[in-house]
Amino acid sequence: MSQVKPSAIRELLRLGADPSIMSFGGGYPDASLFPLEQLEAVFRASIAGNGREALQYTVSNGSPKLREQIATRMARDGIACGADNVLILQGGQQGLDLVAKMLVDKGDVIVTENPTFLGALIAFNPCEPRYAAVRMDDDGMDMDDLERTLERSPGAKLIYTVPDFQNPTGVTLSLERRKKLVELANRFDLVVLEDTPYREIRYQGEPIPPIKSFDTEGRVIYLGSFSKILAPGLRLGWAVASEELIQQLGLLKLAADTQCSTLNMAAVSLFLEKYDIDAHIASIRQIYRHKKDLMLDTIRRTFPQDVAFTEPSGGLFTWLTFPEGFDTARFMADHALPEAKVAYVPGATFFPLEQEVNHARVSYSTQTDEVIVQGITALGKLLTARRNA
Amino acid sequence: MSQVKPSAIRELLRLGADPSIMSFGGGYPDASLFPLEQLEAVFRASIAGNGREALQYTVSNGSPKLREQIATRMARDGIACGADNVLILQGGQQGLDLVAKMLVDKGDVIVTENPTFLGALIAFNPCEPRYAAVRMDDDGMDMDDLERTLERSPGAKLIYTVPDFQNPTGVTLSLERRKKLVELANRFDLVVLEDTPYREIRYQGEPIPPIKSFDTEGRVIYLGSFSKILAPGLRLGWAVASEELIQQLGLLKLAADTQCSTLNMAAVSLFLEKYDIDAHIASIRQIYRHKKDLMLDTIRRTFPQDVAFTEPSGGLFTWLTFPEGFDTARFMADHALPEAKVAYVPGATFFPLEQEVNHARVSYSTQTDEVIVQGITALGKLLTARRNA
Repeated sequence: MSQVKPSAIRELLRLGADPSIMSFGGGYPDASLFPLEQLEAVFRASIAGNGREALQYTVSNGSPKLREQIATRMARDGIACGADNVLILQGGQQGLDLVAKMLVDKGDVIVTENPTFLGALIAFNPCEPRYAAVRMDDDGMDMDDLERTLERSPGAKLIYTVPDFQNPTGVTLSLERRKKLVELANRFDLVVLEDTPYREIRYQGEPIPPIKSFDTEGRVIYLGSFSKILAPGLRLGWAVASEELIQQLGLLKLAADTQCSTLNMAAVSLFLEKYDIDAHIASIRQIYRHKKDLMLDTIRRTFPQDVAFTEPSGGLFTWLTFPEGFDTARFMADHALPEAKVAYVPGATFFPLEQEVNHARVSYSTQTDEVIVQGITALGKLLTARRNA
Repeated sequence: MSQVKPSAIRELLRLGADPSIMSFGGGYPDASLFPLEQLEAVFRASIAGNGREALQYTVSNGSPKLREQIATRMARDGIACGADNVLILQGGQQGLDLVAKMLVDKGDVIVTENPTFLGALIAFNPCEPRYAAVRMDDDGMDMDDLERTLERSPGAKLIYTVPDFQNPTGVTLSLERRKKLVELANRFDLVVLEDTPYREIRYQGEPIPPIKSFDTEGRVIYLGSFSKILAPGLRLGWAVASEELIQQLGLLKLAADTQCSTLNMAAVSLFLEKYDIDAHIASIRQIYRHKKDLMLDTIRRTFPQDVAFTEPSGGLFTWLTFPEGFDTARFMADHALPEAKVAYVPGATFFPLEQEVNHARVSYSTQTDEVIVQGITALGKLLTARRNA
């Protein structure tokens, strides 16, 4: 239990609840984008039409029909697979937990991006792994550094990556690096865990094929999620992997919680059947692109030049880098919160090993245009004033 | 992974799907008892009235309002507690997984009833525990044998029990033994995991206070579930424990799957507010009592005298004991299935250590009156014929 600590995520949830604070901390999707009418219709139809089945237990790997529908969507995205390659999960987060349980024993090395998704560290920590963290740039994980890291870490079990619009940095792994990543995983004989909650929230440029599409040896486990494209309160995600790995993960799923909600699986399956989720995703993308543009424009206009920020092509986050020596956690507690009423996530918490204190994750997903402009401008003024002081 | 094996439960799910087989194997509740109209109404109201919140992320320990409602119900059942003592779970099964994760390291001893719930063994096995199994009689776990077991197992971490209408035997732990169990847990300094999915399905006699109600040292973790009193497809259960233990379990819940479905929690909370779940449970009880009486009467009428069976005061199961040397698994494969078209669960799988082959778990919960009479009679005739052959 020693590695499971009250998390920064929880602290942020608490902060987010203070109505006087303009919070850019949370990684929530914009609730105004949930397709409420359609969701009401599919839940109603699932209970009224077939409630005795939709409210009963079902197979632990998840509703066969939904697995089939997901397999079809995956195939369209370049991952040839069938329903037996799909396991329905309680959100992508459960995939992190089950994969670590399956592969990682105490002291085993997990390789992550540096920085990486905090929720992944929280999921992996109960297995008491060691971490190796790989340098990133604007094209994602640096493959030379990954190679050196793997050479230094014989017996490493897992490479964990968020290749599309990464949490927390917003950067995307390039095509060439995706291919190289699979090559290195093959050479060093370990599993790649490709976590893609933001993949379909791309605003600009062409989608880059998933890492899983280059997998020739059945060693990539792909995690997808309905949380950002439909609604997180449904708690539905999925894993795609070789039948052998899905079988093992399915047994761990059975042990962990028997199955996902039959009703929620039935309702989402009906949603995919009755409605055009791609049209829904397209409309979501417009909104997030607009918010992203507004935030980045406001940063450009109001922030001092020595604050760098990433320019994401999708997802919910940008990542700020302040000059060395600037402590974003201290600045938030001492200035941003009391003076500008602004919250973000101090970046230190996303580093598995050496915590760099001069970064912040800023999300544009949940706030209105007005709050984005007002909050980011207030933060920019505060930073500029301090710099000029 | 070595201890996680394709489970007997899965095999049974497959068997249950063959429409020509009269299966008394599954532990499903009777789907005709789901309150469909009310569930449709509360899902509709949760989405239409408050969907932006009900479909968003929420706190990982679960909806505060539902935790409050559960705490009130628990207090009425003799367990003084508040919302901070309650953690919402993905069914009771998730409690088994999280508690084992929290307390059990490889090689640690878990003490169980003999036989015990298969799903618990499946949840515990990934932690690679050793088991100690305690003798049972018609009053549940034998306390003298438990004491001897604890003396022989220094450092044991956990006592696991299903005190009400146990799965698989249907027997109930007596009042005196509940008190004694807490006394022994205090003396030997270990945690008691009290799993109560069937507790509210009592047909006859007065409820016996939960073990947790005798807990003076915060060492009993109580697990409850909506699966048998409302619908399992919702995947909602809960743990009640000391704030300290709930805090630790909550962090493991956050790591495992972030949270339960916000929508399902909102809908069940509204159900508890708008409808009389106790009246619903009372009507369920009538049906199950009737089915239990019908099955036991049919067993009495048609089975040979040398087959013993338990007489449950609640729950979904009776437990058959055949003469020594009788192998229920072999009999099912060779005779019950092909000749009588009847399935049950061979008992061996419920024993954590030495598997006794001369038992069977028989469920009366899902079959119609006609099938109960027809199937049990067919089985009785087959047994009688073989005995007289």
